[in-house]
Amino acid sequence: MDLQRLQAQLDFVREVDKLKSVLRKTYLMDSSRNENSAEHSWHLALMAMVLAEHATEPIDLLHVMKMLLVHDIVEIDAGDTFCYDQAGNVDKEERETRAAERIFNLLPPDFASLVRELWDEFESRSTPEARFATSLDRLEPMLCNFENRGGSWTEHGINRRRVEDRNHVIAHGAPLLWEYASALLDEAEAEGFLKP
Amino acid sequence: MDLQRLQAQLDFVREVDKLKSVLRKTYLMDSSRNENSAEHSWHLALMAMVLAEHATEPIDLLHVMKMLLVHDIVEIDAGDTFCYDQAGNVDKEERETRAAERIFNLLPPDFASLVRELWDEFESRSTPEARFATSLDRLEPMLCNFENRGGSWTEHGINRRRVEDRNHVIAHGAPLLWEYASALLDEAEAEGFLKP
Repeated sequence: MDLQRLQAQLDFVREVDKLKSVLRKTYLMDSSRNENSAEHSWHLALMAMVLAEHATEPIDLLHVMKMLLVHDIVEIDAGDTFCYDQAGNVDKEERETRAAERIFNLLPPDFASLVRELWDEFESRSTPEARFATSLDRLEPMLCNFENRGGSWTEHGINRRRVEDRNHVIAHGAPLLWEYASALLDEAEAEGFLKP
Repeated sequence: MDLQRLQAQLDFVREVDKLKSVLRKTYLMDSSRNENSAEHSWHLALMAMVLAEHATEPIDLLHVMKMLLVHDIVEIDAGDTFCYDQAGNVDKEERETRAAERIFNLLPPDFASLVRELWDEFESRSTPEARFATSLDRLEPMLCNFENRGGSWTEHGINRRRVEDRNHVIAHGAPLLWEYASALLDEAEAEGFLKP
């Protein structure tokens, strides 16, 4: 047995513990604190399992789950870039690519390539799996913001149009989920915690 | 399209957000705070992907991941029972079974049965997938306790013998991981943050 290989696998396992300390702008549904990127990734993988039937095209669920489990790991170095922060998004790609190179390469080469491919696929939204994964990644914070009555939308002055511009991509991976999300936005606006 | 079905799926998705607020006794590797059960579940699913080759028997990785993503959900109602707490473990099964009945049944019946079966399988360790999943569930807190130099072991006065009694089951699902974990215990004892 190749102990060096196991050591590399476990070096990665240890390193990713830091994702539990990367805070997102989104608040938990009960508003108690900001969500972190590790628990967010868990939520998405579980959503994939429960909502797979709503994907536009047939998907490989295992592949979707793998993508969701790794999609935010680069934030350990690059931080979570708020999706509505135009300045922060200018150098996001460069920061995240450097992070991917450092963190994924802790793994043995075969896994380093695999994880890099999963991350690239997610970012490019080039497959049915990546499009469905993106739908979930966009839906989850909408559910949080709806449940906590505006949370990060209110805090950062985000109006409905910006929420829609950012999230209508949900429709590509799962049209029914976008329909559902749009109805939530109607309700949020009617109840006054999302500006038109 | 059955909107009632989608609503039930999303009721479950919302309910499980609470798992992010269930704190475990284990501390994060950097000691900054207690780990929660949602981010713990994420870590295990990712470990399954990276460490699958060390399973004793051939495993279905998707099945392992599903089991790990749902294995702690009952803690939303039942709380996290510290594995070394003998009193707390007396009524654990009853509390967790009640929780499973309430929470899993938020889902449409087909999914409620599926998640219940996954949870029962994990608890019974009756399949290669469940045994491997258990190995990861036991290894991860050992890695945390090793990295944070004794964390919850020291806090609760747990000695090496109790750690071994609790965790040697790792060997059933992944012998090499148990070998690795035992070497960590040697080191922890030698460095003085685990009592013999």
